[in-house]
Amino acid sequence: MLILGIDPGLQKTGWGLIDTVSSSLRFKGCGLIKPPTGLAMAQRLAFLHEALAEIIRTNQPDRAAIEETFVNSNALSALKLGQARGVLMAVPALFGLEVAEYAANTIKKSVTGSGHAAKNQIQMMVRRLLPACGPIGADEADALAVAICHAHYGEWNKSTTKSKSAV
Amino acid sequence: MLILGIDPGLQKTGWGLIDTVSSSLRFKGCGLIKPPTGLAMAQRLAFLHEALAEIIRTNQPDRAAIEETFVNSNALSALKLGQARGVLMAVPALFGLEVAEYAANTIKKSVTGSGHAAKNQIQMMVRRLLPACGPIGADEADALAVAICHAHYGEWNKSTTKSKSAV
Repeated sequence: MLILGIDPGLQKTGWGLIDTVSSSLRFKGCGLIKPPTGLAMAQRLAFLHEALAEIIRTNQPDRAAIEETFVNSNALSALKLGQARGVLMAVPALFGLEVAEYAANTIKKSVTGSGHAAKNQIQMMVRRLLPACGPIGADEADALAVAICHAHYGEWNKSTTKSKSAV
Repeated sequence: MLILGIDPGLQKTGWGLIDTVSSSLRFKGCGLIKPPTGLAMAQRLAFLHEALAEIIRTNQPDRAAIEETFVNSNALSALKLGQARGVLMAVPALFGLEVAEYAANTIKKSVTGSGHAAKNQIQMMVRRLLPACGPIGADEADALAVAICHAHYGEWNKSTTKSKSAV
């Protein structure tokens, strides 16, 4: 089962692919989508769309998951991030994939055991769980963490998973 | 010059098409995109994407414009509306169109002469400016108003337009 994890952002979006083989996880790829600076908003969103569509076309994942956006009190930045997130959710759906959403602390917990883990702890644990990924940036690590979380909590393996209370 | 106006919304998105022939405006079409209720968020966004792509494919507009979203203090609803808006801005850009953005009061002013016009006033004035449109709903009227606004304030006719201060 090939799982695509997405860490959404307008400036840079992380993506990560893992394969679940029985109960083990295998690293399959990761990267960063960075629209060129200076693009107008609509063109930047179209860039995110095309880049993610190309990743899905090339890798043919079976499932997709995205990090729920933390909504703070700044409605304008929520709107902007929402625009990127909308595009990044629509693309897998256009390929017929469901897109699961996970809260940041559920993702952190599934990777580190703690819902309040620091960013570098996520990075360290992702590298430990997926040694083949080598040195990776924080956004790729977050995207791979989303995919790992989905491997643990995804609907399709509810019958075999014990930690369902966090879903 | 065929102009597509978009009034973005997750529940319902209005769209309107007008043609500018020298200084006169002609109604070319309008409608409402309503994703079926009960769809998951990603599928709803994909529905908006496909519906708007079909409208652009069929009508081949030359320009596109969208209403700027009013951001109130509710960051969560700003995020959700942002998601719909992101998709609706990306689609025209994927077809190579620039997407102009106009604040609600600029749109109102260009149609009614007042930046604080009520919704039914917009509807009435759009019907007066585009008699061929017949009875239309508030969302289609808003979308046509965005297109009318772009016809007035668009970059390409700056040299012939006198009301540039509102741009």
